[in-house]
Order: sequence, then structure tokens, then C-alpha cells
Amino acid sequence: MDNSNGFTHFDQEGAAIMVDVGGKEVTVRQAIAKGRIAMTPACFEAVRQGTIGKGDVLGVARIAGIMAVKKTSSLIPLCHAIPIEKAGLDFVLLPEEAAIEAACTVKTTGITGVEMEALTGVTMALLTIYDMCKALDKGICISEVYLLEKTGGKSGTYRNKEK
Amino acid sequence: MDNSNGFTHFDQEGAAIMVDVGGKEVTVRQAIAKGRIAMTPACFEAVRQGTIGKGDVLGVARIAGIMAVKKTSSLIPLCHAIPIEKAGLDFVLLPEEAAIEAACTVKTTGITGVEMEALTGVTMALLTIYDMCKALDKGICISEVYLLEKTGGKSGTYRNKEK
Amino acid sequence: MDNSNGFTHFDQEGAAIMVDVGGKEVTVRQAIAKGRIAMTPACFEAVRQGTIGKGDVLGVARIAGIMAVKKTSSLIPLCHAIPIEKAGLDFVLLPEEAAIEAACTVKTTGITGVEMEALTGVTMALLTIYDMCKALDKGICISEVYLLEKTGGKSGTYRNKEK
Amino acid sequence: MDNSNGFTHFDQEGAAIMVDVGGKEVTVRQAIAKGRIAMTPACFEAVRQGTIGKGDVLGVARIAGIMAVKKTSSLIPLCHAIPIEKAGLDFVLLPEEAAIEAACTVKTTGITGVEMEALTGVTMALLTIYDMCKALDKGICISEVYLLEKTGGKSGTYRNKEK
Amino acid sequence: MDNSNGFTHFDQEGAAIMVDVGGKEVTVRQAIAKGRIAMTPACFEAVRQGTIGKGDVLGVARIAGIMAVKKTSSLIPLCHAIPIEKAGLDFVLLPEEAAIEAACTVKTTGITGVEMEALTGVTMALLTIYDMCKALDKGICISEVYLLEKTGGKSGTYRNKEK
Amino acid sequence: MDNSNGFTHFDQEGAAIMVDVGGKEVTVRQAIAKGRIAMTPACFEAVRQGTIGKGDVLGVARIAGIMAVKKTSSLIPLCHAIPIEKAGLDFVLLPEEAAIEAACTVKTTGITGVEMEALTGVTMALLTIYDMCKALDKGICISEVYLLEKTGGKSGTYRNKEK
Repeated sequence: MDNSNGFTHFDQEGAAIMVDVGGKEVTVRQAIAKGRIAMTPACFEAVRQGTIGKGDVLGVARIAGIMAVKKTSSLIPLCHAIPIEKAGLDFVLLPEEAAIEAACTVKTTGITGVEMEALTGVTMALLTIYDMCKALDKGICISEVYLLEKTGGKSGTYRNKEK
Repeated sequence: MDNSNGFTHFDQEGAAIMVDVGGKEVTVRQAIAKGRIAMTPACFEAVRQGTIGKGDVLGVARIAGIMAVKKTSSLIPLCHAIPIEKAGLDFVLLPEEAAIEAACTVKTTGITGVEMEALTGVTMALLTIYDMCKALDKGICISEVYLLEKTGGKSGTYRNKEK
Repeated sequence: MDNSNGFTHFDQEGAAIMVDVGGKEVTVRQAIAKGRIAMTPACFEAVRQGTIGKGDVLGVARIAGIMAVKKTSSLIPLCHAIPIEKAGLDFVLLPEEAAIEAACTVKTTGITGVEMEALTGVTMALLTIYDMCKALDKGICISEVYLLEKTGGKSGTYRNKEK
Repeated sequence: MDNSNGFTHFDQEGAAIMVDVGGKEVTVRQAIAKGRIAMTPACFEAVRQGTIGKGDVLGVARIAGIMAVKKTSSLIPLCHAIPIEKAGLDFVLLPEEAAIEAACTVKTTGITGVEMEALTGVTMALLTIYDMCKALDKGICISEVYLLEKTGGKSGTYRNKEK
Repeated sequence: MDNSNGFTHFDQEGAAIMVDVGGKEVTVRQAIAKGRIAMTPACFEAVRQGTIGKGDVLGVARIAGIMAVKKTSSLIPLCHAIPIEKAGLDFVLLPEEAAIEAACTVKTTGITGVEMEALTGVTMALLTIYDMCKALDKGICISEVYLLEKTGGKSGTYRNKEK
Repeated sequence: MDNSNGFTHFDQEGAAIMVDVGGKEVTVRQAIAKGRIAMTPACFEAVRQGTIGKGDVLGVARIAGIMAVKKTSSLIPLCHAIPIEKAGLDFVLLPEEAAIEAACTVKTTGITGVEMEALTGVTMALLTIYDMCKALDKGICISEVYLLEKTGGKSGTYRNKEK
């Protein structure tokens, strides 16, 4: 009997393992993860001004996100270390909602995907925005963190259609 | 003229700094951050079975969250390293919504708060759940990551009232 | 004259180096390291109950071991970073001796072996058991940490025959 | 009912936690952990020559041990980060047994002990010796890793009497 | 006989140690370290334009420097981990010399100084500038890295007078 | 219009990115970086005696440099993680100038170069010498940190001719 309930990260006994990715095909793989952060209009305005003047919140968040991408396997216990070929963060300001949308794109040529890297990157970028804004607004909320798209690998292209 | 737009993490010139927390009062400070992760009912059921049998997804996520709490200052660029006295994660299963709610509680006796530690802990716990579930469900979404409560320090007790 | 006494980790002058592994053959390589931890019968019984109920000491130790496998090259000064394809920990309870035997299996497809990864994984798993048990028993002892088996690479299969 | 079986690292529900050390007394605390590594006489002789000439295996192991002491809380999941005031490694060569005995001493002035730091330091020093010697001897064995002595804190002085 | 040649980082036997800082006075301590990087006029001009427009080399370098300050004790083997209260980087552009001067200021309230933190911060900021400029100029040179000033602690204020 | 001023580490919008190295040729690549540290004659003499007796400053610095090479991508924000095949440090004592010259050699077989790894290694080795010497001499200065030579990759061999 298989006790693992369909999870690949547990063996037959239910013990956590870093699954064997040996033998998987080396292909170009890319993932894009998204997330958003909502704040008060006053706080949003302060961030917005920083992007065009001094006090560049998004510039700091971008670096935090890229550095987090490289640390993913030391943060997620069962995640494989993957040689990252490219990593970047894009931000879109949504003034009407006093929110910022972030997207993290990660690319590798390897034997396993980079979804977790993209998700970790976008999350740490958003938390860095949070950190810099928390003196202005304690009610900040991060939401809609999900995988937008992945390409490459055996399962081919996936794109989240609902979002 | 102050170019920092009210941000404490930038100096008068708009340059990012790790702000001086010297001279702040040493008090007991605690923060609780929450977040949630939603998945398909089938995926949720697999996680739920793991918590009562083999393949303990939440047990792994709990360890990931606690370890992430301790790494916060190496992930958030302008965050101070803080001696953590206590850290824990609680999960609530919400079967009707096929979602899991996580709360991370962190406590210190120090000169600055632990909001970012609690937020980092809850986020990495949720991403670890994501990692273990992603083979079953690619549409998983993390949301409602926010500070529920903080106590201690000059600004006293804060509690998010809307949530 | 060679001053290195046969060590590959020192050059002719006796200076420590990370030896050149360039040009070595890329093969599937696996290593299994073992170790054991002995405690009082009362402490052992508490661990044993945790594995079948609440308070899962071995579950936490397993995660610690897997995460340590990935950190090996940052802990052992002259050790190369290796892309780990698989890592897992197995535990055997030995009630008559009030001891636990741990085995860490690590696999790569690369140019150098993963013995140090397996040894680091098994050791950190045992130290994590120690940490969780030390309030119950201060006389815990870790012993018999050794390489059980390695396969792949130029030197082929090795198996410790004495153990 | 308490499900934690006496463990301090699990709460009433059996969930792993980093226990609250707030309110514990700040005292000078020291721990000494020991361990040993046994090898073939030829390998031992090579190490011994290095300590008096070129190729200083123990010098490298000492640095690895001290650096590992500082990383303990990032390796042991439920371990608190502690400000280390002093850390050192001592080695005793045992020619008749072709073995090396290592002792790691760690000191803090803080609210919790440094046993895990001393044990991590001695273990990583021994694994570093292993790494440098493994080309000469694949049958190396690490054993007798235990806490020799701890002083300070509520429980006072402990000394292992059997060893 | 003392074999340590006056070094505090070696014991009487010449073994490296992390020296005991217990019992030292807790005072406010600050250190400022400086360094400079010289490049071709064309490369300098590209950096200069980035500081006033898009492509903010110094903004990225500042974050790298601040994050490195926090990692100092994991990089310098015998360095104590210190709770950093403040860290910042200042840059001065020297157009006539096509050079940039960096200063890193670090502050703590603790039992030992933060010279190494300031020096590590300034060095990593300069290396980050190097990294971003190396496609434009392979002859970049970092120089004049030294301690400008330290205050606090038993030895009181030091200021480098020659520079 | 390209706002990136010729930098490869910024995109068209001026946002920092980890540039795409996918598709670059896998070749053997090596880099040698140099640097020097100057001190008082008395301090220099203490270091010199350590290299031939007890208190081996350069031995510790060598390990620090090698370990830093492996951490480069976690220190330099936009730097790719590269599988290091070889890393070593060489020191030359210059008694007449009371200075030490360090060279760090790093080699990989990969898709991007190892200049930053060599520069990080030489810098951290020099800072480690600084740390151990700072009790004897507060006026120590690090200078002349530059890339001596790189081979492999599309741009072929580079050698700094002025130095």
C-alpha cells in the first residue's frame, strides 16, 4: 500500500524525501510567478514617488527578490538546488487599488523546474516592500501569489487561465 | 528638504539604510502573522490525510517556517537581526474552502519588533506546502498574508481589526 | 619533494586547496552514510512514541538531515558544491539498545562523489535528535558514523565490510 | 492530555516549536563537547606529520569547527541563535589507536545553553578531518560524540561521569 | 613561552580561536571603513548616469554592502556575531579620477567592535560595483580599503590620520 | 531608447536583472585575482613568524578565501551561482614593504566566468588577515585588488598588462 497520498515528496512509508530527479531530461525551463501587495493610498503614493525620485522601494525589493531566488533550495526543505540562468522582477503600480503587482521570472537549463524559485522571489520582493512600508501602514496585505506560467520539462507549458 | 517620503529606511538623500535602532527600549515584543493557501479539494484532502497519517505536509512546513524565521535578516535587506526567543506555526484546515490557514507567532525581548520574522515564517511555511502539493495541483494560490497582531515596543499593541 | 603527505587537499607547498575536479567523468554517484545515537531507555521510549503519535522527533530530524545535505559545501571548507539529485534519511529503532540507527542516502550525476553530503546529512539528523532529547537525557552519545557504501566514479563501488 | 511525551520542543498538540526561552536568567554558560575519529595507521601518520609540518589537517578542521559553531541555529531546526563569546577546538593525537580526539569549548553570556553549538563544532571539525583523509582511507569512523561538561544556567553544572 | 606572536586570535599553542569577549564592557561602538574603485572614464560616466537616471549601480551596491555587513561573522572565521543597530553606505563620485569612494558606517551597542563589519560592507559594495561594470571595463581596481574611524570600547576613539 | 547605459545588469527600463546566460558556451574558464595588504613592520613580522611556526595567519586566511569563493553568488546580488572545480590562494610575503600579496585562482567548466569568485576569494582572505592583525595595527590598508587574468569563454584570454 502506498501511504504517500499521491505526494512525490514522501516515500512509501510516508517519510519526507528529496525526490530523485536523476534521469529527467535537461531542457530550458522557465517559470513566472505573480503576487500583489495592497496598502493605504498614502503609503502607495509614497512608494510611487520613490520609483521616480529618491527612496527607491521597488529597487530594493527587486534585489531582495533576485537574491531570494538563489536561496530557494536553502529555504524550501525538499527543493533541489538549480543553476539559475536568469532572474528578474517586474512591478506594476495600480493606483486605483493602491496596490502593486509583482512578477518574478526565472529561467534554467536543467532537469527540474523553477516554479519554487519564481514563487520565492516574488514573495520575498513583496515582503521587502512590506518591510519598508510598515512604518507608514500596519494593515498591508499580500495576496494572489501564484504560478502564472511555466514552460519546458516533461509536462510542457502550463498557464493559469483563471487569473 | 526631506526626500525620503516618510520612509524610515531611506536617509535624507534617498539612500537605503538599515535604520539606527540604538537607544530604543528593550521590551518583550511579539508578533503574529497570518496567511492562507487554497488548492483543489483533491489536493486538500491529500494534505488532510497526511496530518493524521503518513506524509506529514504540515509537519515539514512547520519546520520550514521556524527555520525561515531565523533567516529573516538575511532575506530582507534592511531588516535587523533579532534574537528570537520563541517561534511556532499553527495551521487550521478549512475543508469547505479547500484551504489552510497558517499563523506564525514570534517573540523576542529586544529593541525592535518581530513583524517581519512572523511574516517570513508564515510565508515560507505556505510556500513549503505549495512545493509539496504542486505535483497534484498547479493552480494553488497563497493569499491574505498580513500582520494579525503585535505587542510591545513604543507603539504598543496593534491588532488588525478588519480581518 | 612533495610535502603533502599523500593528501589531495594540500598542494606541494602544504597549502590547503579545493582540488581540481575538472575533467573527471560525469557519472551517477551515490553514497550511503550511517550513524547511531544511544540514550536512556526512558528517552528512547519518548522518541518511539513520537514516531507513532504526536511529537515526531524523527520527522524533524529527517528534514534537518536533508537540509544539511544541501549545505555541505558551505560547512566543509574544501568540499565542492554538488547538484544533489536525491536525498533521504532512514531510521531504525533498536529498543534493546535504546538506540536509533540513521542512514542517509545521497545521489548525484556529477564529477565528484557525495560521501561528505551523506555523512553531513546523517550527522545533522542525529544532532537534531540530540537537541530534542537533551532535556530528557544529558548523557546521549552519537557513534558509528561512517560511510557504508559508495557507487559510481573512477574508483567504482566501495562497501564497508567490517560493519 | 499532554501529547508531547516530555519533550520541550513540541507543544500540547505535538507540533514542533522553538520553545520560549524568554525570562530565563542571563548567566555565563559554557559547554564542552567531545568526539573522536579513527583511521588506519598510515592515514593517522599522514595527519600527524601535517600537524608538525606542511599540510595542516587539524588547522583546517579547527576553522571548520569554529565556523560551524556560529552556524548551529541554522542547522538544528529548533535551536535558538546565541551570541557566542568564545569558541575553540582542541585535538589530542592517540597514536596507539590511530585516532584523534577532539574537544570543542563554547561560551556565552545568555539565556540558554551552548551544548548544541559545542556538539556541532566538534562534529564538523571531525567531518572536515574525514574529508581531507578520505582519499587515503575509506573506512574512517567517527564516534563517542557527547557532551563532556556544561556549566551555568538553572540546572547548574553537569559533567559526564562515565566517559 | 607564548607562541602566539602577540596575536589574540591564537592561543598559547598557536591554535586559532574565537577569543573570549565575555566580560568586556557593553558600550555604543561605531566604525567607518572606506575604500575606492577606479575605472575607465567611459565606465565611470555610465555609473554616474545611472545614479541620476535608470540603471542604478550604486543603489544595488548599497544593498549588497548592507547585507554583507550582516554576514560578516559567517565570512571571517574568527569574528564574533554582533547585533548590528545601524548600517549604511555613502558614495562619493570623483570624476577627475574616474573613481568612486565608498564609506560604510556600522553601529552596535555591544561588547566588541564593528570594524570588520564596516570593512566587509565597504568591500562587498565595491565588488558589486565591479560586477556590474566588468562588461565595460576589465581593468577595474579596488584600493585604499581601510578603517577611517572607530569609537567606543576600551581603546576609545581611533582615527586614521594619514588618509 | 536603451536606458541601460551599456550595462548588462540592467534591462531597457533600468531595472536590475540577473542576466540570461543560457545558451552561452560551456568551456573551461579560469580567473586569477590579486590583492595586497600593507601593515606596520612589527605586524608583518608577527605574520611572517606565524607562517613558519605557530599561529598560522595565512593558513586561516586561505580557508576563509576558499569558503568565500563558494559563497560569491550569495554576496554579489546579480552574480550567477557557478559550480567551482578548483579554488586556491597563494600568498607572497614582501618584507621590504611590510606587505603581503595574495592571489586567488578559481576554475570552472561552465557557461559564465569566475572573475567575481576570484575577486571575492582574494578580498575575504585579505580581510581575514586584517581581522587577525587588527589588535597589533589599526592602520592596515588593503589595495591593488584587481583581475590579473582570465581564460576561456567567448571573449577569450584577458591579461592585465599594466600591473
